[in-house]
Amino acid sequence: MSHRPIAALFDPASVAVVGASEDPRKWGNWLAQGALRGEAHRPAYLVNHRAATILGRRAYRSLQELPEAPELVVIAVPGPAIAPTVDAALDAGARALVIISAGAGGDARGEQDAALAQRVRDAGAVLLGPNCLGVLDSGRRLELVPNPLPAGAIGLISQSGNLALELGLMAAPEGLGFSRFASLGNQADLGATELVQAFAAHDATEVIAVYIEDFRDGRAFARAAASAVASGTPVLALAIDDAGAGARAVRSHTGALASDGAAIDAAFAAAGIQRVRTPRELIDAAQALLRCPPSRGRRVAVLGDGGGHVSIAAAVATGAGLDVPELSPAVTGPLRDALPAAAGVSNPIDLAGAAERDVHVFDRLTLDLLGSGEVDALLVTGYFGGYAEYGPETAEEELRTAALMGAAAAATGRPVVTQTMYPHGPAAQALRQAGVAVYESVEQAAWALRVLADGGARRPAATIATLPNPDPPVSGDGYLAARALLAAAGIRFVAHHEVTSADEAVAAALQIGYPVVLKALGQTHKSDAGGVVLNLAGDGALRAAYAEIERALEPERCTVERMAPLTDGVELLIGARWDPRFGPVALAGSGGLYAEILSDTSVRLAPVTETEAEAMLRALRVAPLLTGARGRPPLDLAAAARALATLSHVAATHPEIAELEINPLLVTRTEAIALDARFIPTSQERESAVHLHP
Amino acid sequence: MSHRPIAALFDPASVAVVGASEDPRKWGNWLAQGALRGEAHRPAYLVNHRAATILGRRAYRSLQELPEAPELVVIAVPGPAIAPTVDAALDAGARALVIISAGAGGDARGEQDAALAQRVRDAGAVLLGPNCLGVLDSGRRLELVPNPLPAGAIGLISQSGNLALELGLMAAPEGLGFSRFASLGNQADLGATELVQAFAAHDATEVIAVYIEDFRDGRAFARAAASAVASGTPVLALAIDDAGAGARAVRSHTGALASDGAAIDAAFAAAGIQRVRTPRELIDAAQALLRCPPSRGRRVAVLGDGGGHVSIAAAVATGAGLDVPELSPAVTGPLRDALPAAAGVSNPIDLAGAAERDVHVFDRLTLDLLGSGEVDALLVTGYFGGYAEYGPETAEEELRTAALMGAAAAATGRPVVTQTMYPHGPAAQALRQAGVAVYESVEQAAWALRVLADGGARRPAATIATLPNPDPPVSGDGYLAARALLAAAGIRFVAHHEVTSADEAVAAALQIGYPVVLKALGQTHKSDAGGVVLNLAGDGALRAAYAEIERALEPERCTVERMAPLTDGVELLIGARWDPRFGPVALAGSGGLYAEILSDTSVRLAPVTETEAEAMLRALRVAPLLTGARGRPPLDLAAAARALATLSHVAATHPEIAELEINPLLVTRTEAIALDARFIPTSQERESAVHLHP
Repeated sequence: MSHRPIAALFDPASVAVVGASEDPRKWGNWLAQGALRGEAHRPAYLVNHRAATILGRRAYRSLQELPEAPELVVIAVPGPAIAPTVDAALDAGARALVIISAGAGGDARGEQDAALAQRVRDAGAVLLGPNCLGVLDSGRRLELVPNPLPAGAIGLISQSGNLALELGLMAAPEGLGFSRFASLGNQADLGATELVQAFAAHDATEVIAVYIEDFRDGRAFARAAASAVASGTPVLALAIDDAGAGARAVRSHTGALASDGAAIDAAFAAAGIQRVRTPRELIDAAQALLRCPPSRGRRVAVLGDGGGHVSIAAAVATGAGLDVPELSPAVTGPLRDALPAAAGVSNPIDLAGAAERDVHVFDRLTLDLLGSGEVDALLVTGYFGGYAEYGPETAEEELRTAALMGAAAAATGRPVVTQTMYPHGPAAQALRQAGVAVYESVEQAAWALRVLADGGARRPAATIATLPNPDPPVSGDGYLAARALLAAAGIRFVAHHEVTSADEAVAAALQIGYPVVLKALGQTHKSDAGGVVLNLAGDGALRAAYAEIERALEPERCTVERMAPLTDGVELLIGARWDPRFGPVALAGSGGLYAEILSDTSVRLAPVTETEAEAMLRALRVAPLLTGARGRPPLDLAAAARALATLSHVAATHPEIAELEINPLLVTRTEAIALDARFIPTSQERESAVHLHP
Repeated sequence: MSHRPIAALFDPASVAVVGASEDPRKWGNWLAQGALRGEAHRPAYLVNHRAATILGRRAYRSLQELPEAPELVVIAVPGPAIAPTVDAALDAGARALVIISAGAGGDARGEQDAALAQRVRDAGAVLLGPNCLGVLDSGRRLELVPNPLPAGAIGLISQSGNLALELGLMAAPEGLGFSRFASLGNQADLGATELVQAFAAHDATEVIAVYIEDFRDGRAFARAAASAVASGTPVLALAIDDAGAGARAVRSHTGALASDGAAIDAAFAAAGIQRVRTPRELIDAAQALLRCPPSRGRRVAVLGDGGGHVSIAAAVATGAGLDVPELSPAVTGPLRDALPAAAGVSNPIDLAGAAERDVHVFDRLTLDLLGSGEVDALLVTGYFGGYAEYGPETAEEELRTAALMGAAAAATGRPVVTQTMYPHGPAAQALRQAGVAVYESVEQAAWALRVLADGGARRPAATIATLPNPDPPVSGDGYLAARALLAAAGIRFVAHHEVTSADEAVAAALQIGYPVVLKALGQTHKSDAGGVVLNLAGDGALRAAYAEIERALEPERCTVERMAPLTDGVELLIGARWDPRFGPVALAGSGGLYAEILSDTSVRLAPVTETEAEAMLRALRVAPLLTGARGRPPLDLAAAARALATLSHVAATHPEIAELEINPLLVTRTEAIALDARFIPTSQERESAVHLHP
């Protein structure tokens, strides 16, 4: 894609607007106005097959009449006129096209979009849309969008027009704006992946922000984002989970199936993408990334003038996953000397009125705290910005203090984030100019600090794993097929015998040794349906259980299996799911009875290495039970990680398997052994599939 | 307290400000200005022992010089002058005092406060403070606060002055403000409890908002709040957990120990108090409660013009614990007919541009959706408020639409909450006036809807349980003492024998029957330290385990106990903690290995009835394992609830026990049986106590 003429989309030598209009309620009017705002930089040609004059300019009746080849053509014509207009634009020499019009809807859309994209590609051009809001490059004064958007350093790629408008309204009062904006529309040709690549190479874009409903090839998108992040441009993305009500709207909006939330999380984590959930979070995160250095860790000092504010801020910061560590005497001693007796000095730090007497206590403490090495960032909360009310001299000093706080952040290379009761006052403005992020509410400030702290973790994995070549597909489903497949790959299973009668069951138990487990085969929710009976200690109990299973479930066959020592170990669930956008995704979680009740899971793009698998297991809340914390014997974590890595490779080589899982995997001191397994073929209706994700 | 003269605090016949000042940087100046703003309603006397004239008014040198008894005296004098001024005020006939000055700090504070309060009470007066910001009653034009605050229907009680200021700054742009404000300060006399009672009886106060660090008698506070809620005045409270960094600041701020977060949650739930975490949440919740009817449930329709907005809103609403249910054909059919083909109609509802042609689609759908009976509330998101940009006629229609949306909410008795890109425009203002809550971000709107939906649950329990008379205190600690106490109360424990040698252990096992458990006595973290060995199946294993325990732990004694059938049941933790503010608090949670790993707990004020105990268990995430969901056999939930209720009564009659717990309580199909227990006396240093709360 690197040789495709994307430059013609953002910095064309000339622009033509087809469907330009005099009517101020029409897109063709808004786009024409936008094109004319850039006239000092490039010729703007207005085309309308009826009008002779639009907005005081000569209007051309067709693209053929233009005095030169239009490098970029924006098309705002009724649906049936789109295709001929595209042909005319390509004939006229256009290298980039933006189709605002929606084009065909419903089933015909895909076909029409593909045909348009093919024509454009054959001509060596690029196409944005159809069904999009336009394109903007602030530095090049290209404003082919219906509303003006504030200029700045955020490169925005959005699949929703109104959302871009809202982001602009939220960004402007924070002194933020856009370097570029591309409205994705149907992504008939250019998609999010190529645009991320283009924005990463664009110097004026310091942060890339994406609102995306349809990922197309999710791994390619993740790879493009990872490359941007690796080269120093953070990527923020707002994506809706394909679960619950949110998903239905995405379907109805662009016919796209959004990806399941956990798969998105896994892909974003692998790529180093910061996920956001709302426009507010997007703008708040962008502000922090643009104004502040990344934070080296999660240790935060909280500083304010008033115990209420600092208490609330410390609690909110802790709730956001930050640490508010107690400070050492080396720090608190001088603070104790410098501040009033009522002050809190051990973090959070309550100035207890000290700033009313000398507002510079804020910049002195900023330098002291960030320079102490005991915290990674500073959160200032509350009244700062209001000292101006004490008179014009104090107002002057407050502005100087703001500048010095920013200087302290720069000198120490550590972020200062503020929440102020006066977010729109002069001191707040001075903070912004000095490289301090400013927020109105403390929850926004804490979230921003968390984003900065995660910056360290927000490095892409070395590579987004390429999928291995598929193995020959397997057939069948259920427990025995899964067991055979996974055992062949090297995963240990508990000893078992297939039986078809109570006598055979007793004979099998004799060989295995009591106690045993009896399982009915062919039941999806075996244990729920009473198809698994544990801990059968003798012939009588086994025969009784067999009779009951036969009566209730009429299975073709059963297995008799060794009863594993459940109380000696911890039960995990390990599995993989083939996601339509991101491919195979590996999952680890609490298993056994608790698997579907506790949301204790860790998810990554599959396949995973043993090292990655171990990291997944260590990320679980049950990890302390595995690693032997607090005097417990450590369990065989390495064996569990090996099993997970193996399973993830099996899943990655079998696209015909929608879901593959072992539950439970019993991890003891000496082994990790699978007690049950199943797979669900991709061909089975997804509705009947048991989702691995709770 | 009802006969105490609190009315004199909020609507005095006359006011005197002692320490009034000409200096615009001094409290005495700000308060004097505030007093003079109410001069049309009541005489305001300025007192300063030096000045003859202040703010153009005659200043009196002492309270004795005043022409009449000052009903309310505000004291802003240096610390040492406080006590004599209080005496002078009482001598002069004051019935209410507000002490702004901080008074003594550190250890002397409690004593000085108690002495002041006693003097005031003996004189039949009331006292607010010391160390407070003042008092306000908007309706009575009483403004004895340093900064003007907006008038409205929120009654604010705050232990932080700057926080009250911030709440005022946040409330004003939303068209909200305060009916009354009382700054708590040290609560030497009047505390939060009495003020909540007074505000509940105040007609102009429609919502009570509290920021509190020191609850004093937490149950009395909860009872006052429950009474307010029951009589129709919702109570919002911001309180900081006594855990982590937040707590240290509270200590340093007013020397108060804040209550532990779970105990606060339990008390608030019992009282029907809506807990908030930040000033933003407080104002957002207040807006919803003041503008909207309560929601009858959590079912929300999401409506907007743009798939991005409605998808995000639906996801955020779901994340906030609301339901966004699919709508029936009876609703979607007419929508499908009325809206463009690209519209989403099954919830969320995407107008797909329909409002650009006729903005009244918003009010029509508001009525249709709220009238359908399929949802309890409506969340409108995105562009509404921006249609005015289509021209003056559309702007007019948009205002009418806003009014009609409010009318639809009123007619159906169901709330409409909006998030708009234009929160400060005329349409947003029209929405507010029409009884629609308006928010800038969708997360605020979703939170507000959740608060409205919880309104149904926000009914206080019939009574906040009064504590039973204490039983004779018990001594000892550890397993056997806890076991004896709880078994005597009727809780079933697994069979056990105390032993002091391997031979005795084997003899005990013979009586109990293998397999058995061997426990070392006297270890706090027995199972962590290897002091509990499960599943010993014969003499050899038992002797080996005994030898190992003896070697490693040198216990005085051990017990041999029946090995309970762990795989046949579910392990719970049940316990109680004596909270310094709220008294005994009962807890249920996942038990066994998982107890301290999973945050699956339910907490209530103790004692609890069996019915309440069962509700606690049903609120756990492990509840499906207890109730027999999905084909599992139901376990003996009633027995588990009985055990929890019994334990909570034991805890409530033993204030000498700081913590009391059974872990695990094994619940099987036929019983709930305690496998281990312990208690920690209140007298033991709290630092050594093992907290029940993970």
